[in-house]
Amino acid sequence: MKLLRFGEAGSEKPGMLDADGNIRDLSGVVADIDGALFSGPDMDKLRAMDPTSLPLVEGNPRIGPCVANVPKFICVGLNYTDHAAETGQPMPSHPLIFAKATSAIVGPDDDVVIPRGSEKSDWEVELAIVIGKKASYVSEEEALDCIAGYCIANDVSERSYQFDYAGQWTKGKSCDTFGPIGPWLVTPDEVADPHDLKMYCAINGHRYQDGSTNTMFFKVAHQISHISEFMTLMPGDIISTGTPPGVGAGQNPQVFLKPGDVMELGIEGLGTQRQTCVAWSR
Amino acid sequence: MKLLRFGEAGSEKPGMLDADGNIRDLSGVVADIDGALFSGPDMDKLRAMDPTSLPLVEGNPRIGPCVANVPKFICVGLNYTDHAAETGQPMPSHPLIFAKATSAIVGPDDDVVIPRGSEKSDWEVELAIVIGKKASYVSEEEALDCIAGYCIANDVSERSYQFDYAGQWTKGKSCDTFGPIGPWLVTPDEVADPHDLKMYCAINGHRYQDGSTNTMFFKVAHQISHISEFMTLMPGDIISTGTPPGVGAGQNPQVFLKPGDVMELGIEGLGTQRQTCVAWSR
Repeated sequence: MKLLRFGEAGSEKPGMLDADGNIRDLSGVVADIDGALFSGPDMDKLRAMDPTSLPLVEGNPRIGPCVANVPKFICVGLNYTDHAAETGQPMPSHPLIFAKATSAIVGPDDDVVIPRGSEKSDWEVELAIVIGKKASYVSEEEALDCIAGYCIANDVSERSYQFDYAGQWTKGKSCDTFGPIGPWLVTPDEVADPHDLKMYCAINGHRYQDGSTNTMFFKVAHQISHISEFMTLMPGDIISTGTPPGVGAGQNPQVFLKPGDVMELGIEGLGTQRQTCVAWSR
Repeated sequence: MKLLRFGEAGSEKPGMLDADGNIRDLSGVVADIDGALFSGPDMDKLRAMDPTSLPLVEGNPRIGPCVANVPKFICVGLNYTDHAAETGQPMPSHPLIFAKATSAIVGPDDDVVIPRGSEKSDWEVELAIVIGKKASYVSEEEALDCIAGYCIANDVSERSYQFDYAGQWTKGKSCDTFGPIGPWLVTPDEVADPHDLKMYCAINGHRYQDGSTNTMFFKVAHQISHISEFMTLMPGDIISTGTPPGVGAGQNPQVFLKPGDVMELGIEGLGTQRQTCVAWSR
């Protein structure tokens, strides 16, 4: 099942993708795609539904963030060995986590704003986990049952804000528009192996990141289990699981985003994203 | 104006304190005490209201967190020079910020759960700012207009989780019940000078923290202005502004919380908190 949200920013409707890739309108069935849905009884109703019985959405509406009302946006840093190497940092002993402000969340194809004065905005294609039910001190075995689905996240990052302003990393991760998620939430039954998905990120057509989740160091179940020892994961929480090598800061010389640049990202089975970078203006 | 929330956890009602310290029921006037209220038209209505015209709340109901639906809980670390010294860390060049999970928020007198296996749970009395309207790239002058009010926060912290698990600090700050806020939100007109408020935290009657916001290093307006350069502050966001010296990790020998311990906190004009520490159980 592929769930999404479509329409103008702030007034998106819930939708479902049918087998032909058409958007079907779910607004007559559920209120929104969020934690309340994932942890409530309506998910089973959606699973039993024939998408073609739902109203077809005409045209090409904007696609919004695939999850609404996200309580927490947690990111795992340095979770691909070769990415840690390219940043010159040691591989952490445990999942390194930081928070991205939920105010950074945008749709998968929305513009990304280069912050005022920013010179080091960078890209990071990541597999994101969306939590489906409360998780506190869950084992790795229990962890997989807590997943509502997967989506793409672009963990857009400002390297100067991340490292040069007395910390912590959240400063470089939380700017408005730095959290495109989507295009859709793909339920776990459609993701045969989350650790065997090709993934890429291209800037202006040049594929800087070209990897696979098979080089992820701390696996999905371990991340959920570990984080759940430090805080209760809530339905609708997002965990972005780290990025493979090929970020701008890892190039020689380094490459950073500027207005007009186009980011194109994809993860096998989870769709694609496309953001245009724009200059900040009040 | 002192706004609060009373009743059972998860079904609190909005209230207002009258001049005699009685709780008056606001549930017939506003839906809740949250960002939607602060940024909407009802704040003026509340200001014009005579609290004694509202229904008196009988008995001694539980007091809940004074703000509902908190989008972001941002904390400023090492913001009192002598606290930085006691932790053995240098004073940061800019406000050091990290996120506390919003799932950690509880009422001012609720139990604080010592996490499973925790040996280094610690206290931090802090002045918290509650944001009243969207703030992006605001100047220090504009920043004060963005404040809905002030309250006490206990930035409960697990020092081992904070420092020994490959980071970042959010791990040691986000455990369930680690974010008591309240008892009430005090509007800025009742806080003559946020940088001249006595504050304390006592454990089992011993006053370990006994300071004043007058030794705060990065001031309130600067914090808001600075953070607003990295993310948009939203109505209902909380910024906890750092703690004065006297935390458990700063004692010689160090002192940490154990089940049965009682924390009593207060800030001049903002009321008091009292939490009992309890052991973790599933």
